[in-house]
Amino acid sequence: MPFVTIQITREGTEPGADSATAEQKAALIHGVSKLLLDVLGKPMESTFVVIDEVELENWGRGGLPVEQFRARQRSRNSE
Amino acid sequence: MPFVTIQITREGTEPGADSATAEQKAALIHGVSKLLLDVLGKPMESTFVVIDEVELENWGRGGLPVEQFRARQRSRNSE
Amino acid sequence: MPFVTIQITREGTEPGADSATAEQKAALIHGVSKLLLDVLGKPMESTFVVIDEVELENWGRGGLPVEQFRARQRSRNSE
Amino acid sequence: MPFVTIQITREGTEPGADSATAEQKAALIHGVSKLLLDVLGKPMESTFVVIDEVELENWGRGGLPVEQFRARQRSRNSE
Amino acid sequence: MPFVTIQITREGTEPGADSATAEQKAALIHGVSKLLLDVLGKPMESTFVVIDEVELENWGRGGLPVEQFRARQRSRNSE
Amino acid sequence: MPFVTIQITREGTEPGADSATAEQKAALIHGVSKLLLDVLGKPMESTFVVIDEVELENWGRGGLPVEQFRARQRSRNSE
Repeated sequence: MPFVTIQITREGTEPGADSATAEQKAALIHGVSKLLLDVLGKPMESTFVVIDEVELENWGRGGLPVEQFRARQRSRNSE
Repeated sequence: MPFVTIQITREGTEPGADSATAEQKAALIHGVSKLLLDVLGKPMESTFVVIDEVELENWGRGGLPVEQFRARQRSRNSE
Repeated sequence: MPFVTIQITREGTEPGADSATAEQKAALIHGVSKLLLDVLGKPMESTFVVIDEVELENWGRGGLPVEQFRARQRSRNSE
Repeated sequence: MPFVTIQITREGTEPGADSATAEQKAALIHGVSKLLLDVLGKPMESTFVVIDEVELENWGRGGLPVEQFRARQRSRNSE
Repeated sequence: MPFVTIQITREGTEPGADSATAEQKAALIHGVSKLLLDVLGKPMESTFVVIDEVELENWGRGGLPVEQFRARQRSRNSE
Repeated sequence: MPFVTIQITREGTEPGADSATAEQKAALIHGVSKLLLDVLGKPMESTFVVIDEVELENWGRGGLPVEQFRARQRSRNSE
């Protein structure tokens, strides 16, 4: 009876979307439940999944809020 | 100094409510703090509780978002 | 389908025990599942509980590891 | 930069193993990172995964420690 | 590659703010990433931080929702 | 009353140590509690910290267990 937590930034990857869509969330839920069945034999019935969407300003990396981190990465890569 | 996290779906169980009410949350906080006092002798003062309400489309079970999971359960039970 | 995480320090409260006993853990699991049934009407079947036991040196409060924090509290109270 | 936590009971599913094997863990890590790439376009490089193995007596369901819960399920199913 | 979760109540500490400001969040992200560099030598690049803001009515202490807990503390202190 | 969780791999950074030392853990606890005092004015007394040490084979990045990820990074950097 696994419990999976998926933390992602709240932002869209499709035109007009400002967060993961319901279809994308359903695909994550199905995919990770299937993975636990395939790898560990856990019945899909007994796997719980929670998707935790985190505001961009609440997510940090490299000592910076994520948008500043990404801007710095892009600027480095374009040097 | 226990720390308890209660993750529930954001939905109402009372007429007109679309989430747990403040009274229900207070009852959860009191009940679980009392439980830790009764079972492990932890002073209520030192127990922290966080209630994490999760949107229905962000909660999965059986490989499905929870509303589809429930619909499938109901349909099976009515067969 | 709630998910409850109970984080406690790994230490005994009964003679000879250096952690919560299996009976105490079972009482926590039962108690919190019953609470969610009573307060929110959640079927006990669908509640998951995880007890996370944390080593004393890995738990901090008041800016100190918990054993030093407690020693300071005792010393203050006996003043 | 997603962060995924997979909580499973500490128990073996292969002969002689008393927990998930290193190969099974590697398969979970790869599988869920690939899923986030496929569904949300997240680069595998930026996905973190933590597998949290929980002792059987620390995991509860249906108001019971998981081994008692399973025994009850088996007994019900064999009626 | 540490992962840090900072859970705080959603409330402002500056005039007119009803939550931590973007500047305060950036200071938390920078400060904790720097701490892991200083204490454990972890490169800041590889530290992730998530700030989880919890509604006041979802946070409990002393068996009470946090605002009632604080009111009780103030009333005790003024005795 | 903030709650901070610091997840790190279980491995030593000092000679002869196979995990963070008690002194390093105390420094993390003090440092992050002080940070919350400095940035948000939270009294150190009311901040809880939990350090969660994760086995290397249970931590993944880039779709690989962390030791394989690091080996690949080193091999890329030395090209």
